[in-house]
Parts: sequence; structure tokens; C-alpha cells
Amino acid sequence: MQPSVDDINDAARRIFPHIHRTPVLKSEGINNMLDADIRFKCENLQKAGAFKSRGACNAVFSLADNEIRQGVCTHSSGNHAQALARAAAIRGCNAFIVMPENSSKVKIEAVKGYGGKITFCEPNLESREKTLLMIRQETGAVEIHPFDDLRIIAGQATATKELLEEVTGPDIIMAPVGGGGLLSGTALATHYFSPETRVIAAEPAGADDAYRSFYQGKFIPSVNPMTIADGLLTSLGKLTYPIIMKHVDQVIRVREDSIIKAMKLTWERMKIIIEPSSAVPLAAIMENSGDFKGKRIGVIISGGNVDLGKLPWK
Amino acid sequence: MQPSVDDINDAARRIFPHIHRTPVLKSEGINNMLDADIRFKCENLQKAGAFKSRGACNAVFSLADNEIRQGVCTHSSGNHAQALARAAAIRGCNAFIVMPENSSKVKIEAVKGYGGKITFCEPNLESREKTLLMIRQETGAVEIHPFDDLRIIAGQATATKELLEEVTGPDIIMAPVGGGGLLSGTALATHYFSPETRVIAAEPAGADDAYRSFYQGKFIPSVNPMTIADGLLTSLGKLTYPIIMKHVDQVIRVREDSIIKAMKLTWERMKIIIEPSSAVPLAAIMENSGDFKGKRIGVIISGGNVDLGKLPWK
Repeated sequence: MQPSVDDINDAARRIFPHIHRTPVLKSEGINNMLDADIRFKCENLQKAGAFKSRGACNAVFSLADNEIRQGVCTHSSGNHAQALARAAAIRGCNAFIVMPENSSKVKIEAVKGYGGKITFCEPNLESREKTLLMIRQETGAVEIHPFDDLRIIAGQATATKELLEEVTGPDIIMAPVGGGGLLSGTALATHYFSPETRVIAAEPAGADDAYRSFYQGKFIPSVNPMTIADGLLTSLGKLTYPIIMKHVDQVIRVREDSIIKAMKLTWERMKIIIEPSSAVPLAAIMENSGDFKGKRIGVIISGGNVDLGKLPWK
Repeated sequence: MQPSVDDINDAARRIFPHIHRTPVLKSEGINNMLDADIRFKCENLQKAGAFKSRGACNAVFSLADNEIRQGVCTHSSGNHAQALARAAAIRGCNAFIVMPENSSKVKIEAVKGYGGKITFCEPNLESREKTLLMIRQETGAVEIHPFDDLRIIAGQATATKELLEEVTGPDIIMAPVGGGGLLSGTALATHYFSPETRVIAAEPAGADDAYRSFYQGKFIPSVNPMTIADGLLTSLGKLTYPIIMKHVDQVIRVREDSIIKAMKLTWERMKIIIEPSSAVPLAAIMENSGDFKGKRIGVIISGGNVDLGKLPWK
């Protein structure tokens, strides 16, 4: 079960009025340093600061008026929460967001800023799911899962569709992997629009369920994942895992220090603010630079939501 | 004496292969907050991190082969040094850069990275000029002044030319003012390509020679200017001052705390890294928001070269 090429094209048309067509940027300095031609699709410059706006808008605007009357709901500590609150506000319906009580203040404020109605829960999956179930029963809102949803996957795929319209036939497309919504969308869009291009996922070694699941051929969720790339703590889902198995060519794990190094390099050389999760593909290229030499590489920069008061360098 | 419309069009053609056509970005959040429609021309995403690459490339590529044989030279502690070193490297000639010995390490490394030949001097104008004169006599290199040069002004004007191709007929165009190279280019391009648009300069109150010169109608250089916007410490020049008098409509001074606030807001909401100088126009809008309500405003973001280890907030 996976989105078709029509699903992705429909998603692109559906979300067009509500999202940015984000720029594709490159850095002479980084390309010279790595002897490669890397183009970055800057979803950190997307509405609400992340690619998540694509999937959230596609899901919210796919629903019929009568389906969405009671609003939408989800549990998320991060960018999906903001994106869903924003999409619901544009559609004119309620967004009920279950957030762990230890979520960062910046993210809580952002969700509130878009009019999201927050219910706090304990910071564990069990409490998140239990609280969300309660919210659904109380409100009748439709659940929009952050990644394990075909409408979300089709929406996230539009970032790669746009990238491939500007950078035709790259050797490689790379995306970070957490729950796999972005990665499965990236892999599908590449499969449909540039089938010769290889798809490489990048994952923190400290949250490497996709790596293990991919190479062992069975779904192995993370236990106690730990990484600065807080958008990638989640394990793959029932829908994203098979798409990734089928359409991704390789998964690379990276060290924490490489993530910080790649993040800082991007800030310094490209003058854009990216969150740690976004730096994981560049970290993978830097750790394995011999394998990427001379290649034309498209990289999805996933988001730019960072607490500017807590940067991982001095 | 000022660049003609042909000079600006020629500059655009001349520098086209060597610079980025930078994106024009907007932020829903900032526009809602200020009830205005602001579009930012992101020269922080320009080659070498600032609009200075435009003027430097125009100057270097305007020179005939026999004129440039001995190289080019300048004194600069900032973005012009990097931009000139880079332009000279592309042209295949030497760039001799006089830099104050207290210049930031990041900027010294960047100039070296582009192959610039640095001579250090004491951190005052007298020593800079004396050292540069010596370099010129020794090497026969052509001096390229950071702003008081018609080729530089025509080059900087191309940023506004591009902005006006994407955002037609805005009510207002804004740029920060230091030596006035960017501002005079901005004002001329607006005069030629969108004559109904008002041009407003923004200047730190702690380095307000343009404000005083503009409203008193005589050239009054700054004495001991002090501001976090270190790109704007310079006073206007002999060429830039009359262009500004003729084609700029208003100069607004802003407080230091407003500059930091506007800078942080831009980082947080737009996910781009801008240096303090770049935040001065947005600071002017925020301090005088009533005057800008409902307006369509184009803002030139001048650069993004910041020391990430020394940010002006906690």
C-alpha cells in the first residue's frame, strides 16, 4: 500500500496555495570541500519551518467538509504539531494536539500561535496514545498520524518532486529518517520522477532502527533512542517501513559529532538555520566522502526549528 | 556623477555567471505581526555571504586584461575583502587586502580561503590608507574602493533590479546604510526600474552620519561610531552622498536593542542567518510600525557573515 504517482501530483496541486515552493540552494565552499555537486532543497524555509507542512496540508485538505467538522488531532512534540495546527487554521477547523509536558517552550508557543488546542501528557508513547484516544472520543476529531498515513507520505513526497523539477536526474537523493514519512515520500517521488536516481537514507547511529530494520529485513523498533537530532527519535511505521524496503537503496548511520559538525558547517557556509535532524544527510556525506566524490546529490533539508538559546557549540 | 540605467543592466549581465540570483523570501509570521507585506531579498545567501560580491565582480570584470595584470587591492575589515578576493580568484589575478589586525578570525580565514593576500595594519583609517598606498606602490595593483566607486555602486544596484523583477511596484524599498554603496545602488535601481517606489534608508543611531548628512544637507562624517551593526560603521563617500541626497526619500535611525530584536526575529521566523547590519531595516519597520502598516515593502538583507560563537543573545 503506497501513494501512486497521481496521489503525489494531486497532493502538489492541493497544497500549492498553502505552502512555499522552497528554494534549492548550493554552497560553492561545501561542494569544493567534498568534491561533489550537492543541491539542498530548503524545507527549513517552508511554512512553519519544516516539510511537515506539506503532509499536514495534504491530509487536512483531502478531508471532506463533513469529515473534518469536529477537527483533527494528533500527538507530536515537534514540527508535525505546528504544521497540523497551521493547516487546520487555514481550513477553519480545530486542531487538538497532544504534547508531552516536557516539550520545548518554543514549540508549545508555536502551536498556540497557530491556534492549536494543546493537551499535555507524560513524555512516553503510552501516555501520548492514551491521551490522544481520550481526545478523539471526547471531540470526534480525525486523527492525522505524523507519518504513518498515505496522505502524509504523498504530501512529503512533493518536496522531492519540486527538487527533481529543478535538478534533473541527480545520481543520488538523500533524506534523514525518523518515522519515515519524509523518507518514504522521497523514495516514491524519486521512483516515479527520476527512477535512475539512487535513494540514500541518513540516520543517527543513536536511533538506528531504520538501519537495523533495513539490513535485517524485519521491523525492529528503537529502544531508548538517543540523539541530538530530536526529529529522528521515532521508529518506522507500518506503512513507511515496506515503502522504504522497496524503494530505498541504502541507509547510512552517522555519529553525533558529525551531525553537529555538518549543522555548523551549513549555518556558516549556507547562512541558513537548520535543525540537527536536517544535518544528518550532510553528515553521512562527510563521513563517507570518498563514496560521494564527483556525484550530483540532492539533499532534503527537513526543518529549521531550533532553540537559538541552546546551540550545540560554544 | 552616477551609474546610468545601462551601467546597471551591463553590470547585471557581466556578473551573472559569477553570482547567485538570490531568493526573495517572506515570513507569514512577521507580516502578520507587522500588518505589512514585506519581501526580503536575501543577499546573505549570496556568494561569499553578502551583496558585496555583486560590486566586486562588476569592478573586477570591468577592467581590461592589461589594467588588471598587477591585481587589485583594497582595505576592508569585512565582506568587501572576501568578495574582492573571490572575484579576483575567478578572474585569475591577485587580490591584495589590507585588514586591521583586530579583524575577526573568521573573516581573515575567509579572505585567505579565497586566496587573498593579506597585509595587516593598525585598526584606524589613517593606518589603513597608508598601508594601502604602500601596497599600491609596491605592486601596481588597481584599488577597488569598497563603496565609493561607480562600478561598485552599479554592481550593488543589481540586487534591487532583481528584487523588482519579482516584486513589481512595491510601495517602499529599504536598505541599510554604511558607506552608502548598497543604498545608492538601491536608490538608483529603484529610480530607473520602479520610479513610484519610495526609498527608505535605515541606519543605527550610533553611526548616524547618513541621517545627519541627509537632513542637514551637508556631508558630516561619523566621529567614533558605535554599533553592533559592524558593517555600517563607515561614513558616506563623495560619490554615494550626492546619489543618496537625490534619490533617497527618508533616513530612519534605530536603537541597538531593536537591531538585536529584529535580527533574532529573522533567525527564528525566517530560518536564515543574517548579520546585525542586515536587521537594521526590519528594526526601522518595527520601531515605526504604524507608518508601514498595509504597505508592500522590499527589504535588502545585506549579508550573513556572523561569528556563531558570539551571538548577541543568551
